[in-house]
Amino acid sequence: MTSERAKLLAADEPAIAAAHFAVEADAYGPDNPGGYVNLGTADNRLVWDLLAPRLGIPARRSDVHYGLLYGTPELRAALAGLLAPVWPGVGAEDLVVVSGATAALDILASALCDPGEAILVPAPYYAAFDTDLTARSGARLVPVHFSADNGFALDPAAVDRALAEARRDGVVVRAIAVTSPSNPVGHVHSRAVLRELVRVARSHGVDVIADEIYAYSTFGAEFTSMVGERGVHAVWGLAKDFGLSGLKVGVLATKDPEVLAAARALAYFAPVSTHTQALVADLLSDTGWVAGFLAESRRRLHESATRTMELLTRAGIGYVEPAGGFSLWVDLRPHLTDAGEHALWQRILRTGRVNILPGGVFASPEPGWFRLCHATAADTVATGVARLAEVLS
Amino acid sequence: MTSERAKLLAADEPAIAAAHFAVEADAYGPDNPGGYVNLGTADNRLVWDLLAPRLGIPARRSDVHYGLLYGTPELRAALAGLLAPVWPGVGAEDLVVVSGATAALDILASALCDPGEAILVPAPYYAAFDTDLTARSGARLVPVHFSADNGFALDPAAVDRALAEARRDGVVVRAIAVTSPSNPVGHVHSRAVLRELVRVARSHGVDVIADEIYAYSTFGAEFTSMVGERGVHAVWGLAKDFGLSGLKVGVLATKDPEVLAAARALAYFAPVSTHTQALVADLLSDTGWVAGFLAESRRRLHESATRTMELLTRAGIGYVEPAGGFSLWVDLRPHLTDAGEHALWQRILRTGRVNILPGGVFASPEPGWFRLCHATAADTVATGVARLAEVLS
Repeated sequence: MTSERAKLLAADEPAIAAAHFAVEADAYGPDNPGGYVNLGTADNRLVWDLLAPRLGIPARRSDVHYGLLYGTPELRAALAGLLAPVWPGVGAEDLVVVSGATAALDILASALCDPGEAILVPAPYYAAFDTDLTARSGARLVPVHFSADNGFALDPAAVDRALAEARRDGVVVRAIAVTSPSNPVGHVHSRAVLRELVRVARSHGVDVIADEIYAYSTFGAEFTSMVGERGVHAVWGLAKDFGLSGLKVGVLATKDPEVLAAARALAYFAPVSTHTQALVADLLSDTGWVAGFLAESRRRLHESATRTMELLTRAGIGYVEPAGGFSLWVDLRPHLTDAGEHALWQRILRTGRVNILPGGVFASPEPGWFRLCHATAADTVATGVARLAEVLS
Repeated sequence: MTSERAKLLAADEPAIAAAHFAVEADAYGPDNPGGYVNLGTADNRLVWDLLAPRLGIPARRSDVHYGLLYGTPELRAALAGLLAPVWPGVGAEDLVVVSGATAALDILASALCDPGEAILVPAPYYAAFDTDLTARSGARLVPVHFSADNGFALDPAAVDRALAEARRDGVVVRAIAVTSPSNPVGHVHSRAVLRELVRVARSHGVDVIADEIYAYSTFGAEFTSMVGERGVHAVWGLAKDFGLSGLKVGVLATKDPEVLAAARALAYFAPVSTHTQALVADLLSDTGWVAGFLAESRRRLHESATRTMELLTRAGIGYVEPAGGFSLWVDLRPHLTDAGEHALWQRILRTGRVNILPGGVFASPEPGWFRLCHATAADTVATGVARLAEVLS
């Protein structure tokens, strides 16, 4: 069920855009003399001959002029192909491409929630959810905390209880947002747990926002997507699995026609440059290269995680063993003082000159946990762990 | 004065981002062994060697990794240089780059208005204002109509009266939004009129959103910007003056520190690909080419407008003579029937197979006016006008 705001947005396609795409599909030209003459779109078509040689990019006119604002058909087709192994049954028409996974999360939150309504988040959770899911949508987050004793494993029964409790408290929960693979802990949730989570959500009439941006960055377990289940809307992007965070290409997938319509309308405010879309579509169409790249990236992530765990173990520092992602969820509880987690973080940052992020940022259920990202040069990680060990000793 | 929402947004910089940029400025490496080891950012730095050769773009790592989300320093510097002749006194630090002028307008509306508050717009006005300024911000538009008898000229006295009337009616107006050069009519407002408009706005305690996206597309009068005046926030982009509508590069300029802070926070949801930012920064840094391009574009627009006016005159079709922009505001009032403007539009589109946009889309004060965009091949325009004349005869 979409928000009131989303219904208004989806109903209100700008007239100029509608006319533009209708006539451009059958445009007048030397090879189509009976086509529509488009004198409606305020596009400067008098200067292409001046621009093309100077741009120095594959000079397809369509790559630098108005395109569909929720992703070119070429890029959406390439993404559907790329993601077919993890998002089976998802086609180009189910995808909305926007300028980053942040924008995709914001769009889903805005499409599902009116201001003041809530999204339940298993905690610890991806720190940027606080901004991504609430700042523009006006939704608020309700964390449900998991326990260190259980390695912070996702527990659908606890979600069930939290949803019942929220209803008792008069909180209108519209969605559960979950990172899968999980960030910061690095769990790759099992198919059984995810199925149960979706069942719980459905029994409470709430949707699921599945942030699956690390889908191809697993090494310790097989990834299962929630996509395709009714009421599930998933997000992916190029920032993690491809390491192309600057390109700001995010994509959301949904089988819900109302959410899709709202997402397409909201994509109007966060489109991706056609220049970048062309680059990415070309990259992804090279399927042989992509397969090799993803396999090698996964191999390196596994190697890096394993090596980092060895370093931490040797330094006497605990952690939760991850099955995916770029980080380790590190246990510095023994090093907490009365000054608290923030003070420990600042000591690590200022004295140790190592940046790791404190659990408080991830709404950790208890203080003393930190997220350490290992997906960088081995020497850098080794130096970081050595400095960390020194500052803690 | 910024909206309550904007104050919250500006106050709430994501902790991860803050730590990231602080430590990256003094990062550990072979040449900086005492620098910060950044194990805080979830960036996959293990795969650059695999990506760089395949991307086939100038392979600067910074062009595809996390950058400042309101525009790279290089692009903002290039934009400040480009716009210096029209936006004097505006520096890179006054600019926020986002994915399109639409996003920039949305951000200004959201920064200035809380939901339900109003923006006054001289009408006829740019059709997409209805979506750009209201759909996400929750603001609403209050049109102030100008008269065909006066060529729809911008009249600050009428704006003054409309603001007084709105206040009497209990409407909280936070801004005036004006296209300058005007779209759809093509006026290039005089310095005196713009000064008076800003004075009127200030006297009512409202800000000005100046959509100056056609700043370099004038030919019949000299363009004056409102930028630099207190309470004025301007928008520009690459879609019009450079004809690069697909690149989705919009920029806003403000000297108001609160609006700037809110705009930077909101830019997080609509960033531009660093790949495209690098392309544009490179293009704009070639100042000799840019000067020649803009002069030639202006010459062609003038020629095209002149030729189109001759065609219309010969066909007995009236218009308002423009001094800038891509369009002519065409007077089809003599051809209106009782069926109304929409029916006339559909006849022109379906029977004549010409797409021009009806004045209703632009909140025209009276029916029968249409916007005809001439900035395309001379043959296309000639065919369009001939078909138009035929369907009207």
